[in-house]
Amino acid sequence: MKERDNLYDMPYSDLAVEATAAVRGDAHTEIPGVRMHEERSDAATVSWVEVFSPEGEQVIGKPIGNYITIDSPGLRRRNRELQEQVGKVLVDQLAKLLNLGAKESVLVVGLGNWNATPDALGPRVTSKLMVTRHLHDYVPADVAGGLRKVAAISPGVLGITGIETAEIIHGIVEHVKPSVVIAVDALAARSVERIGTTVQLADTGINPGSGIGNQRKGLNKNTLGVPVIAIGVPTVVHASTIAHDTMEALHTQFQGQKAFFQLFNSHEERREMINQVISPAVGELVVTPKDIDDLIEDMAKVIAGALNAVLHTSVGSQDLLRYLN
Amino acid sequence: MKERDNLYDMPYSDLAVEATAAVRGDAHTEIPGVRMHEERSDAATVSWVEVFSPEGEQVIGKPIGNYITIDSPGLRRRNRELQEQVGKVLVDQLAKLLNLGAKESVLVVGLGNWNATPDALGPRVTSKLMVTRHLHDYVPADVAGGLRKVAAISPGVLGITGIETAEIIHGIVEHVKPSVVIAVDALAARSVERIGTTVQLADTGINPGSGIGNQRKGLNKNTLGVPVIAIGVPTVVHASTIAHDTMEALHTQFQGQKAFFQLFNSHEERREMINQVISPAVGELVVTPKDIDDLIEDMAKVIAGALNAVLHTSVGSQDLLRYLN
Amino acid sequence: MKERDNLYDMPYSDLAVEATAAVRGDAHTEIPGVRMHEERSDAATVSWVEVFSPEGEQVIGKPIGNYITIDSPGLRRRNRELQEQVGKVLVDQLAKLLNLGAKESVLVVGLGNWNATPDALGPRVTSKLMVTRHLHDYVPADVAGGLRKVAAISPGVLGITGIETAEIIHGIVEHVKPSVVIAVDALAARSVERIGTTVQLADTGINPGSGIGNQRKGLNKNTLGVPVIAIGVPTVVHASTIAHDTMEALHTQFQGQKAFFQLFNSHEERREMINQVISPAVGELVVTPKDIDDLIEDMAKVIAGALNAVLHTSVGSQDLLRYLN
Amino acid sequence: MKERDNLYDMPYSDLAVEATAAVRGDAHTEIPGVRMHEERSDAATVSWVEVFSPEGEQVIGKPIGNYITIDSPGLRRRNRELQEQVGKVLVDQLAKLLNLGAKESVLVVGLGNWNATPDALGPRVTSKLMVTRHLHDYVPADVAGGLRKVAAISPGVLGITGIETAEIIHGIVEHVKPSVVIAVDALAARSVERIGTTVQLADTGINPGSGIGNQRKGLNKNTLGVPVIAIGVPTVVHASTIAHDTMEALHTQFQGQKAFFQLFNSHEERREMINQVISPAVGELVVTPKDIDDLIEDMAKVIAGALNAVLHTSVGSQDLLRYLN
Repeated sequence: MKERDNLYDMPYSDLAVEATAAVRGDAHTEIPGVRMHEERSDAATVSWVEVFSPEGEQVIGKPIGNYITIDSPGLRRRNRELQEQVGKVLVDQLAKLLNLGAKESVLVVGLGNWNATPDALGPRVTSKLMVTRHLHDYVPADVAGGLRKVAAISPGVLGITGIETAEIIHGIVEHVKPSVVIAVDALAARSVERIGTTVQLADTGINPGSGIGNQRKGLNKNTLGVPVIAIGVPTVVHASTIAHDTMEALHTQFQGQKAFFQLFNSHEERREMINQVISPAVGELVVTPKDIDDLIEDMAKVIAGALNAVLHTSVGSQDLLRYLN
Repeated sequence: MKERDNLYDMPYSDLAVEATAAVRGDAHTEIPGVRMHEERSDAATVSWVEVFSPEGEQVIGKPIGNYITIDSPGLRRRNRELQEQVGKVLVDQLAKLLNLGAKESVLVVGLGNWNATPDALGPRVTSKLMVTRHLHDYVPADVAGGLRKVAAISPGVLGITGIETAEIIHGIVEHVKPSVVIAVDALAARSVERIGTTVQLADTGINPGSGIGNQRKGLNKNTLGVPVIAIGVPTVVHASTIAHDTMEALHTQFQGQKAFFQLFNSHEERREMINQVISPAVGELVVTPKDIDDLIEDMAKVIAGALNAVLHTSVGSQDLLRYLN
Repeated sequence: MKERDNLYDMPYSDLAVEATAAVRGDAHTEIPGVRMHEERSDAATVSWVEVFSPEGEQVIGKPIGNYITIDSPGLRRRNRELQEQVGKVLVDQLAKLLNLGAKESVLVVGLGNWNATPDALGPRVTSKLMVTRHLHDYVPADVAGGLRKVAAISPGVLGITGIETAEIIHGIVEHVKPSVVIAVDALAARSVERIGTTVQLADTGINPGSGIGNQRKGLNKNTLGVPVIAIGVPTVVHASTIAHDTMEALHTQFQGQKAFFQLFNSHEERREMINQVISPAVGELVVTPKDIDDLIEDMAKVIAGALNAVLHTSVGSQDLLRYLN
Repeated sequence: MKERDNLYDMPYSDLAVEATAAVRGDAHTEIPGVRMHEERSDAATVSWVEVFSPEGEQVIGKPIGNYITIDSPGLRRRNRELQEQVGKVLVDQLAKLLNLGAKESVLVVGLGNWNATPDALGPRVTSKLMVTRHLHDYVPADVAGGLRKVAAISPGVLGITGIETAEIIHGIVEHVKPSVVIAVDALAARSVERIGTTVQLADTGINPGSGIGNQRKGLNKNTLGVPVIAIGVPTVVHASTIAHDTMEALHTQFQGQKAFFQLFNSHEERREMINQVISPAVGELVVTPKDIDDLIEDMAKVIAGALNAVLHTSVGSQDLLRYLN
């Protein structure tokens, strides 16, 4: 999960679909440089956001590329059948985005902190994967047939290793030389309803904020030299977002009243008021379900199951949750 | 941590000191049936709230008894020296509240769910205790000297066992026959600044809400037949509290404006607005620090260290954090 | 797992089938008071040992009752299909042994120490069960239909709680009043080949050794007032057994040589020699596979899956490993 | 922990001091190319083995370099004071071996498998270290004073990542450019009494077996370009060693008898007999204390505490166990 420098200016979201909706508003206007498309099925709604020009990049604050959002509110009820159905949707979308040749190898990177439950999705996914890269050196080709060369690593976060995650991954990519990197990470959403119910895929990799002094480098084709597919699931909403949303709700209630209108145009006053409610001295506060541990475990199973099926042709997608470690 | 039926009426707090402050408001008026007292030192502020009449019980919504709050904002910075100082304050206050005879035995109960990080404080404390009850049957009296008979159990929550915690503890108390029960639990506070910085002690035990149909029984002298001392640390704030506080902040800003005044007197409208922001369909949402795992571990060490020192006379309080399991 | 007072007299086994084989020797003689029967299928060999008289009890050192052993050497290869097949065999045998009426309720007890990997099988099984006892008070009868009232608890071991496991379970059984108790525990086998490949079921409950001063009480119909079905899996062999077996192998090699014959009839010399090899000062040493953590996890899944299917009629046995927590 | 290809030829030990003793036998003869020295104190016995020529290397099967063994049998009794004393001995010996300049930076590598308890020492040590490399970029020099640049990583084992550990470490060393690498690993000893009571330091790094087909590369100055200090603690004895030792004990008993003499000179017969007892089909069997989880935790604390004190001049060695994560 990205660390945020300034949480108080505007509700933040890692999801392109939420960033797009925030810009469009209720009027559903067109956004220059951005194309959108949506498809519903019983199990999930799949949305595509394509950012295709620097203008689009600027407006919604996400790099040029493709963002696929799979949304299934029922996932919060821990239904095994629905998890499998969403897993299959994930397999289909990943297959298109990865477009892997038969011999191409993959490195899966589980980002995040295994000691901070809401941030532990990445490490939990890699721990459940069928890792096979080392088997190819030992077993006959026909036995290994149907098993792609898959390596996996969870490097830990800066506070655990003292090393930028990007540095660790660069070093490993240079030695392992995968055809593609898949990076799995927990995300922050804007809406609490997204927590544990949405999966975002993106072919843009992982990109840090653009702030001055940001010394952390991204994980993307530019920095690693191979394509990087990102898989993320919102596990938290920043606490300041709740304060912001309460103001919005009141704003709607009182619209037309002049004083309110002024407040919501004053960046300074808004920020000060949120700071009163969410004391920044307390550190980074997140809103998360009380059963976050179960949620992380469930979503890690769905993603690891889908990755096993999409990467290894010998693993069928009808039993996604069966072959997990 | 208690499960709440209705989170939307009013910001909820497990802390007597917050409930008292909410009633008193800024005017610091006297509350009938409640006595208060506060003492500050470098390490911590200690507050006593004594609820001494049914009227006081009614007004602040906590049973008759003594509530001690130890507050030390610096604990959030993970400073080992401060943890030890707060541990010593805890030892002093616990010693007064427990007032144990030399031969009296203790059962420590770690409440909460070890699979839900913000709720795992109780189980984490019991796992670090020096448990000695069984040694008294095997070792000579002079060796066991200085070690009180201490037993400990973390029964798990209803969703894990299918059994009410109170039923399990009743059964064990009948067999183990301790002189006193100490129950450790994670709490919900009203203010985010309390998370991981406050410890509440109470001689009232653990008491469920008074709602109709509440079939869970309390852990107190009435139900168990022995005194029950409760130790709690706030680890979360209910997400609805953030929404509520934002409204309060706006209210202060716009006081005098009639529409706002009406809103804040309309229970229905307020609830509806909070529901818009914190979708109740999502389940119980809590606000918690991103590093909640470290916070729980640190506070469990402080409490277990203080319990070891206060229960076993052979364990000095100068090395509280040294003899933990 | 039972703690052993004297590990050096004779190789110990918790398995009735091994105790029987040790008595019968290669000659496969009849044992008075003991009936045996065996059935092989592709997935597993099922053996029944019935101890039906005090004489049989004396000879093989196991109480009167029925012992069913399900043996499947392939389980060590971590094959998911075989795990499911063995799970189904387990469902069939458990169904016969339990013989439950539709309304009868069950308490599953996970024995052992969650902090000692080879002893953590019981706690791991209870953590994966569908626990439903509490739901019957809240949901309509037709929704709960197909879900038996199942409660589960892992009380921890004496060193963790300071309380005899039997005391804790007695207290809970008095309050919960289940129709039957199922106790799951890790076992010690005599042969390393049994580790992680054998499941033993017994209708005799859990019975401590008969040594003087043994103050731990059993979990059986006598002590709890309800039938107790035990489920166990060998996870270790005592290290002294390896030393003993090496002597046996040498004995076979050198049979006829007088000095050897004498050694093997001298209890004292044999014990002294084993003590030289397995220093008793080191504490209890066990032989266990290096991948014991995976083995425990796999066997916990198989047993929890089988229990879910045999207890809840709404859970099919074709998907044993699918509905685990 | 190294994986062994052939466990049946001869009892194996990772400890130079045991390899030396095996060669010297009871006669305590000189070994060409090897110097030895021993010093006893109350807390521990410290032994130095210096292998200084290819001949010595050949005879005891360990590369040229210095091996320091710190041995303290009392560690098995979990005494906190003794742990701190042994920690100080460790600090002294490490300081000599490392001989670090004030500005030199360190990468600590925790080898082994966090999912296999007896092999989890390395990862457990890194999780308790004060990691500081990243702080130097953010805090003023005088604040960071006394804190050396320390980075730490536990890469996982081949079966978890699909990548040779050496490959991962090479990549990281190239980016992080530490002055020295410290590699922590669990070891296999020859004697059960060494388990959890011995720490071995070596300036030779980690070196895989020399078998044909061994494709795993070492972690040493040759392969990484910087000195590699290895820290190891025996956590297991191979099960075959117990069988072997039993034969030895019988041999001593029956010496002079011709048949026995022949057996012990026949490599083939000896191996076959051990295979009868320790079925190789079962996989790698180890002898380990039943409380291996506690042992690993205790030794990880001692080593991490000593590393913090020897690496950071601002951490005193009088409170080794106090500043652990």
